[in-house]
Amino acid sequence: MIDNRLRRIIAEADGFAVGTFLMSDSATSAAMMDAAGYDFLAIDRQHGVIDDATCLRLLAEIGRHGTAPIVRVPANRPEDTMRALDHGALGVIAPLIDDAAGAAILTAACRFPPHGGRSFGPVRAGPVYGRGYLKAIDAQVLAIAMIETRAGLDALDAILATPGLDAIFVGPNDLGLGLRLGFTGGHPDADPALAEAITAIATRAKGAGIAAGIHCTDPAMARAMRGLGYRFATIGSDLGLMATAAAASADQARGD
Amino acid sequence: MIDNRLRRIIAEADGFAVGTFLMSDSATSAAMMDAAGYDFLAIDRQHGVIDDATCLRLLAEIGRHGTAPIVRVPANRPEDTMRALDHGALGVIAPLIDDAAGAAILTAACRFPPHGGRSFGPVRAGPVYGRGYLKAIDAQVLAIAMIETRAGLDALDAILATPGLDAIFVGPNDLGLGLRLGFTGGHPDADPALAEAITAIATRAKGAGIAAGIHCTDPAMARAMRGLGYRFATIGSDLGLMATAAAASADQARGD
Amino acid sequence: MIDNRLRRIIAEADGFAVGTFLMSDSATSAAMMDAAGYDFLAIDRQHGVIDDATCLRLLAEIGRHGTAPIVRVPANRPEDTMRALDHGALGVIAPLIDDAAGAAILTAACRFPPHGGRSFGPVRAGPVYGRGYLKAIDAQVLAIAMIETRAGLDALDAILATPGLDAIFVGPNDLGLGLRLGFTGGHPDADPALAEAITAIATRAKGAGIAAGIHCTDPAMARAMRGLGYRFATIGSDLGLMATAAAASADQARGD
Amino acid sequence: MIDNRLRRIIAEADGFAVGTFLMSDSATSAAMMDAAGYDFLAIDRQHGVIDDATCLRLLAEIGRHGTAPIVRVPANRPEDTMRALDHGALGVIAPLIDDAAGAAILTAACRFPPHGGRSFGPVRAGPVYGRGYLKAIDAQVLAIAMIETRAGLDALDAILATPGLDAIFVGPNDLGLGLRLGFTGGHPDADPALAEAITAIATRAKGAGIAAGIHCTDPAMARAMRGLGYRFATIGSDLGLMATAAAASADQARGD
Amino acid sequence: MIDNRLRRIIAEADGFAVGTFLMSDSATSAAMMDAAGYDFLAIDRQHGVIDDATCLRLLAEIGRHGTAPIVRVPANRPEDTMRALDHGALGVIAPLIDDAAGAAILTAACRFPPHGGRSFGPVRAGPVYGRGYLKAIDAQVLAIAMIETRAGLDALDAILATPGLDAIFVGPNDLGLGLRLGFTGGHPDADPALAEAITAIATRAKGAGIAAGIHCTDPAMARAMRGLGYRFATIGSDLGLMATAAAASADQARGD
Amino acid sequence: MIDNRLRRIIAEADGFAVGTFLMSDSATSAAMMDAAGYDFLAIDRQHGVIDDATCLRLLAEIGRHGTAPIVRVPANRPEDTMRALDHGALGVIAPLIDDAAGAAILTAACRFPPHGGRSFGPVRAGPVYGRGYLKAIDAQVLAIAMIETRAGLDALDAILATPGLDAIFVGPNDLGLGLRLGFTGGHPDADPALAEAITAIATRAKGAGIAAGIHCTDPAMARAMRGLGYRFATIGSDLGLMATAAAASADQARGD
Ligand SMILES: [Mg+2]
Ligand SMILES: [Mg+2]
Ligand SMILES: [Mg+2]
Ligand SMILES: [Mg+2]
Ligand SMILES: [Mg+2]
Ligand SMILES: [Mg+2]
Repeated sequence: MIDNRLRRIIAEADGFAVGTFLMSDSATSAAMMDAAGYDFLAIDRQHGVIDDATCLRLLAEIGRHGTAPIVRVPANRPEDTMRALDHGALGVIAPLIDDAAGAAILTAACRFPPHGGRSFGPVRAGPVYGRGYLKAIDAQVLAIAMIETRAGLDALDAILATPGLDAIFVGPNDLGLGLRLGFTGGHPDADPALAEAITAIATRAKGAGIAAGIHCTDPAMARAMRGLGYRFATIGSDLGLMATAAAASADQARGD
Repeated sequence: MIDNRLRRIIAEADGFAVGTFLMSDSATSAAMMDAAGYDFLAIDRQHGVIDDATCLRLLAEIGRHGTAPIVRVPANRPEDTMRALDHGALGVIAPLIDDAAGAAILTAACRFPPHGGRSFGPVRAGPVYGRGYLKAIDAQVLAIAMIETRAGLDALDAILATPGLDAIFVGPNDLGLGLRLGFTGGHPDADPALAEAITAIATRAKGAGIAAGIHCTDPAMARAMRGLGYRFATIGSDLGLMATAAAASADQARGD
Repeated sequence: MIDNRLRRIIAEADGFAVGTFLMSDSATSAAMMDAAGYDFLAIDRQHGVIDDATCLRLLAEIGRHGTAPIVRVPANRPEDTMRALDHGALGVIAPLIDDAAGAAILTAACRFPPHGGRSFGPVRAGPVYGRGYLKAIDAQVLAIAMIETRAGLDALDAILATPGLDAIFVGPNDLGLGLRLGFTGGHPDADPALAEAITAIATRAKGAGIAAGIHCTDPAMARAMRGLGYRFATIGSDLGLMATAAAASADQARGD
Repeated sequence: MIDNRLRRIIAEADGFAVGTFLMSDSATSAAMMDAAGYDFLAIDRQHGVIDDATCLRLLAEIGRHGTAPIVRVPANRPEDTMRALDHGALGVIAPLIDDAAGAAILTAACRFPPHGGRSFGPVRAGPVYGRGYLKAIDAQVLAIAMIETRAGLDALDAILATPGLDAIFVGPNDLGLGLRLGFTGGHPDADPALAEAITAIATRAKGAGIAAGIHCTDPAMARAMRGLGYRFATIGSDLGLMATAAAASADQARGD
Repeated sequence: MIDNRLRRIIAEADGFAVGTFLMSDSATSAAMMDAAGYDFLAIDRQHGVIDDATCLRLLAEIGRHGTAPIVRVPANRPEDTMRALDHGALGVIAPLIDDAAGAAILTAACRFPPHGGRSFGPVRAGPVYGRGYLKAIDAQVLAIAMIETRAGLDALDAILATPGLDAIFVGPNDLGLGLRLGFTGGHPDADPALAEAITAIATRAKGAGIAAGIHCTDPAMARAMRGLGYRFATIGSDLGLMATAAAASADQARGD
Repeated sequence: MIDNRLRRIIAEADGFAVGTFLMSDSATSAAMMDAAGYDFLAIDRQHGVIDDATCLRLLAEIGRHGTAPIVRVPANRPEDTMRALDHGALGVIAPLIDDAAGAAILTAACRFPPHGGRSFGPVRAGPVYGRGYLKAIDAQVLAIAMIETRAGLDALDAILATPGLDAIFVGPNDLGLGLRLGFTGGHPDADPALAEAITAIATRAKGAGIAAGIHCTDPAMARAMRGLGYRFATIGSDLGLMATAAAASADQARGD
């Protein structure tokens, strides 16, 4: 029986799902993050040190406490999306979607014919989710397109209109770069133009009836984004949380 | 040229070295911890998800910023100690040392004849530290015996007198269990008997001219231990820091 | 909440638990075996191609459908037993136990003080089983000693009397070799002396109030062993089942 | 000296080659399958839990008993095909070929100039097959295009006419989906339209002088396909054979 | 602080940088090569047995002695280039560049906006190179296009004119194949047409103000290429050097 | 059918077997060494970066051209010896044998009862060597004790008299250290006392009818050792050969 907690929460009227990125290639680290209370975890095959085989190992440790396993693929290639799903992901985030054609490639890879072109072979998802998997998965999976380039922003309405698209997800760091704002740190306070774009995306997504998510630097930003209409957020990453806590711990131990 | 920062700091009159345990099998996680400002990192092959090959991968990411790579072996076996050194460790922590014979097994494995019985073959340490390695390593390496059982506590003076022993290291969680105090969480405040033992060990080590270290739950405990005469401390672990920060982040994002 | 299905079944009056050995180093293979309907799976670090890190990966895929994860360690060493438990095993099978001293080493490694000498650090078991782990595990874990040598057979009563021992497990292949019967294939029909020993072990274990298990070549042998009083059985292995099925499939396809 | 048993058998007048898919990432599992009596083994990088590095490990265990190592790539990308060949594969199956252009990309990647565009660098194939490799491989390699979409079926004649194409291979599960027949289980008995397509493909391939293969659910289907003119078949997979045998074994042991 | 030794040397008036290819998947082998005295090491993800995760492991061992880590990607895909940089590479060699469009894809992936389209997320490069990484990397990175096909040779001037291209790199083995000269062994002495092409490329690159490098079979060829105007060379590979030395050693030991 | 080339050669009247150590964890490197012309390869689990799982991967690449796969275990532990054999090794070198008891532990682990105490379970050796494995292996396997400490030298005659011992193997580096000669580089020319010991060992082994082997720095030393009566030699290692060749190549390319 499949229960995609991210899908369930964004389907609720006022739901807001909280997640983070996994960038570490440690499956045990993923097991600890799985127990930390998130609604979903986004395994980052784009910027994390995570390849296809590592992603498989991490998926094995996610979901024990109800957390939804999502995978960000390194690029919008059907075979990567299909392998993530075969291995047990319940959603795929495709980076750098610049136009509706890109979004359509993603959505096609996420579902079996006639709704898409996913190839048959759920090698791990089959035994893990059980006999009902094939019947249930097309309704449970999430196809999520990243909006993080100027081209993607310009094509936003067409992307939002792509059949089968379940959500969009904003990458503020790359969006700031794409808008020629330099390294903003990915926070709307860094630049009014970035703030404006982030606000506009939420509004247009809502108008199109598509859930919008966004990557956040900290919990406060996530709460602010929720106020703008965002329905889910990733906050930092496993390695980022660790590094920040480690530096603080070492400093405090020295009495600095 | 070998510079063992942990050895250097505990050789200073009032030095206090700050480290933590690496329990994750992610080398990139180790690289981030290496950049976090610790004096040393203790790769935990006893309780971490780290085996011989993983330890090798982690060692490759430690030392770039001057941090000393130390390995806690899974048990006090010469071949594990010798492999850790061959792979580049500058010190070995042996767990559960119960008597002077155990300490002598450790110290023998840490140095080449005539000072010990280390077997020749520094496969990675050779190229990494360069031509002077063989001449320098015996004076740079640290042999560190854990005091964490009742037997070890009873035999403390004999252990401290072991030729070639460079330091002892207290494991308060196991020590509390060994003293029949149950799960104390490893903090002296949990039980006066544990506090008393921790204080006594520092005093006796100082009397023997051997540096003592201890595992701490947080920076405040580390500072308190420094006050007791401890010369180095591990504070938490990579995965522990991450898990605590993650749970807090998820809670705060929900406004809980 | 820990539920050790193997422990539960052998605690029932007429329970009989069915398992098999995992010898493959494929975690996805383990996930499929986890879904195949066994009561327990015994990860074979002795003869399988499974080391410490691989065992960790396999443990991540076991238990989703209620199957109990058990580990056979490569030898009766405390650090291997303790690592298996830290990584999430709910029982340990120690091979080649020749005497009560060996059994006592095993049982000591399986439980925390004061019941044993297990060292604190459940890196994966903690987050996976949750907050109650430390309180519950000593009552849930299974310490299982293999009887498979002449020495072990001779010392059986002393072994059965070891405090903390939860079960014994017969290895008929090695037992046949140990009794100087040659390669019997591990089936009692191969030699009356083997059959006699297998029967006697069940009887004596029952007399001592200790559950006995045995490795079986096929389901028919398992049912026969149940008739002798055995309470659990491993039947073949993942790779053995695969190889037999593969050879038959290839033959049949050729119409041979 | 290269001997591609699959190529040899399909070159015989009435040869029929029997193989299966490897989906497991265990090299030792592959070694057992290598000894099971197949003519070829198809390492499944599309749906198996097998990436580039795992494929390399599996190739090391195939061929000891004369079995031909074939690789199904995750997608029809030249670099994946070329890496499989550099690592020792003697044939490549490209999935989801929809048109002659796709088939031409495959065939170009399989052979060196002037017959194709394979880049020079047989890192493992060189030492494994010996000095004659470069001269022999272009005549020994197999370029195999999968027919498993409606588009591919429509373009079949053009695909069959692609210079350098050695065989086609039918994926009945995906073909059934592509023909809008739903999840057929990949057996012609499931749907007359699927049966018709499977028969037609064999006929048209024979007419074009190209060997056709097909994936089969069981040995009986393979024999039936041989009757239709198919020249080679994969029957199930390593993990599928294991899972079926395991479930039966557990059931029988309980006397169910 | 980033110091790209390859970039620095080719920026000098008469600098000539010496490197080799890493084809082995052993990180310790890379550590030994790092200590062997090269100016740069080119991790070969195209023909070496090195995938994304292995490349990460090798990068951890390069640079300790000042050697520059360069990665040859398996194909000219932005996500592979970007991951190599995120993991710490200071330059990327893209194989089989046939036209200016290909070169532009490479250069765009190598730098952040506005100079390119690199996506933000330097997971390992950040902590390894420190805080100044983001500001410094665009000026330090090397985008290197391989010239090794007839198409690439024909389009050389357009490729050389690509904004952001830092160097070209000649693959003589593939170039010989592309020119229909068969297996030349990659040495200009093998065929006058190959020699002519190699000479012409150096001349045209110099005219365009772009540094040219080339793969060499041995040191003598490297010195000859320097005479032609080449500014950097790879000479053989880790595994090639080992295999040649091993065969000679075995022969000599037998007194052959 | 098992053919142990090392065993065969040392059984010949004037045979001399040439091998080397594998210290790299690259299986493809092992495949290249397998093709380089050695009689045997000694996988070095003591000083090489090779653990149990890596050893398994390397064994898969050895023997294709008739080379015998031998494993040096990290320490003289029966479970390591038995696993090496289960995985396909045809001989085991145990380091640091100090007395006859140590030699007896080694020989017991190498053969099944009644000749030893090897436990049944040849998971990879079974399918790789085929049905005759169990009957043939006890006569084919080689139990090889290292003589490399003062204690071992003192106990040499008792060690040579151990039933089941097939050969001894001298480690000159450690022997020099053990004799308090410092770092000799392992060559008899470095110190007359080392030369004397090396000569004496060959003589006494010959007297006991046990083949002696020795580790050599170069082919010339191997030929000299043959003259002393040694019957097999390892010469350097994979990584050592590579590093030496690499440094020379870089130097020559610069015209230094
Ligand atoms: Mg982004
Ligand atoms: Mg402890
Ligand atoms: Mg046994
Ligand atoms: Mg298909
Ligand atoms: Mg090339
Ligand atoms: Mg030695």
